[in-house]
Amino acid sequence: MLQNFTRSLLKVSNLNGNDIYAWYLGWSGNDVNAPHDLKIDLICPCTAKQIAKYSAQSVRTVTETPEIYRRYVRPYMQEQREAGRLNWIFNILDGKTEQEDVMLRSKGDGTSGQDEGFLLMPDLNWDRKTMEALHLLVLVERRDIWSVRDLTKRQVPWLKAMRAQVLVATTRLYPQVEPDQLKLYVHYQPTYYHLHVHVVHVMLEAGTTQAVGKALGVENIIGQLETLEGPEDVGLESVSLTYGLGEASELWKGVFAPLKLGRAPVIGGQR
Amino acid sequence: MLQNFTRSLLKVSNLNGNDIYAWYLGWSGNDVNAPHDLKIDLICPCTAKQIAKYSAQSVRTVTETPEIYRRYVRPYMQEQREAGRLNWIFNILDGKTEQEDVMLRSKGDGTSGQDEGFLLMPDLNWDRKTMEALHLLVLVERRDIWSVRDLTKRQVPWLKAMRAQVLVATTRLYPQVEPDQLKLYVHYQPTYYHLHVHVVHVMLEAGTTQAVGKALGVENIIGQLETLEGPEDVGLESVSLTYGLGEASELWKGVFAPLKLGRAPVIGGQR
Repeated sequence: MLQNFTRSLLKVSNLNGNDIYAWYLGWSGNDVNAPHDLKIDLICPCTAKQIAKYSAQSVRTVTETPEIYRRYVRPYMQEQREAGRLNWIFNILDGKTEQEDVMLRSKGDGTSGQDEGFLLMPDLNWDRKTMEALHLLVLVERRDIWSVRDLTKRQVPWLKAMRAQVLVATTRLYPQVEPDQLKLYVHYQPTYYHLHVHVVHVMLEAGTTQAVGKALGVENIIGQLETLEGPEDVGLESVSLTYGLGEASELWKGVFAPLKLGRAPVIGGQR
Repeated sequence: MLQNFTRSLLKVSNLNGNDIYAWYLGWSGNDVNAPHDLKIDLICPCTAKQIAKYSAQSVRTVTETPEIYRRYVRPYMQEQREAGRLNWIFNILDGKTEQEDVMLRSKGDGTSGQDEGFLLMPDLNWDRKTMEALHLLVLVERRDIWSVRDLTKRQVPWLKAMRAQVLVATTRLYPQVEPDQLKLYVHYQPTYYHLHVHVVHVMLEAGTTQAVGKALGVENIIGQLETLEGPEDVGLESVSLTYGLGEASELWKGVFAPLKLGRAPVIGGQR
């Protein structure tokens, strides 16, 4: 890909943009009438965190106990939210930006008695054309669930209703896809702290986005919550979660690397 | 790869074999002194099941409830075990074959009061040289755990002890790797019904073997068991598990496809 870039970039066609993000289709060959062979994502201006995320970096496996979550990771999440890192999400939810990318807005079917609203968008990495590479994102409208850590037994009916409606919505948009040809998962750690669900075609080539140590299957989360010990308000904040973290990430540098060295974590912005 | 094969295969060097399996390094170029550029796995004679496994096939997402497991999947597993499909594993465990591939045999440290014995072998897909592609298999010596479905709360100390000893063993074999550069997972469904754990370097390119809907992180399984509702003998057999199944697989054809069509499953050998 990069070699193509240094050789030539015949044409770019803007797909869309939101806040600091913009994405394009690109043609690296010499025929503007051929199908595009590149998809280009532009982040401008971008933060040091984003440069770190996309740079080649070593990864470490960490185990986030409930205590580490409560003392260090949750405050970090809160700090990220308060620093406005979710504005682009709220812009979409509020109908201010990227509305032409919102493929579907659903209110759910109300069976759970909770706010089941969500919207469905194409993932940045999908070319929006190749069906076996289908990759959508579900943004839930409720704003109280920052990550899987906030899911409790109380959300089991909500998760089930949302899952069912996401399958309905996706197969309505793409009738050539059956519900059991879809895979739903979330990331932990996610890139941003507002619950979003990845929906991919089962034939999509499995890469880092789907890898164990990053991706958790939605149905398995539901199964885990259903059999979790304790009352309704018990949830995944009481479970140890193990995942991979880039050495350039703020959570590695600020929390897990210090803990590994027996030092006190340096949480988020307090450095 | 296939193109190279049709062009030329200058040299093959046998790595090892066991029962119907044999594997080789291959040279497709014109210089026998260059590093190998192929790894070749040979299965001969092979079963229809193996041909199906390695053929391009469509995948379906299925949810295996505790009831489906008990009524259909567990009997299928039992049938596979009784048909001698595990002989090659027992050959290795009994010291009859592939002993030159057993990198390490550990008795564990005995902290769990259960049989902690395991042996460590290279995965078929590893070239046994590239450290960032390290991929080992842990075969446990105890034979009562067919899959993750057999793991109960009682096995939590055993799983923790085994995990710790696997990290010790791997980093002793490869001192250039640190424990937190390793990732441990199991498959469900696995290829054979004797508990085995995959150990990979965190930098190994994540493909199907690590994908959500197939791979479950060992530490997350431990965390799930620890917080599972119920007494000591409760385990993952009481949890719904969702995963991908090839349409050519016996479980799809014999259990889940019939269920999808509202028909009675045709379990394993009773067809």
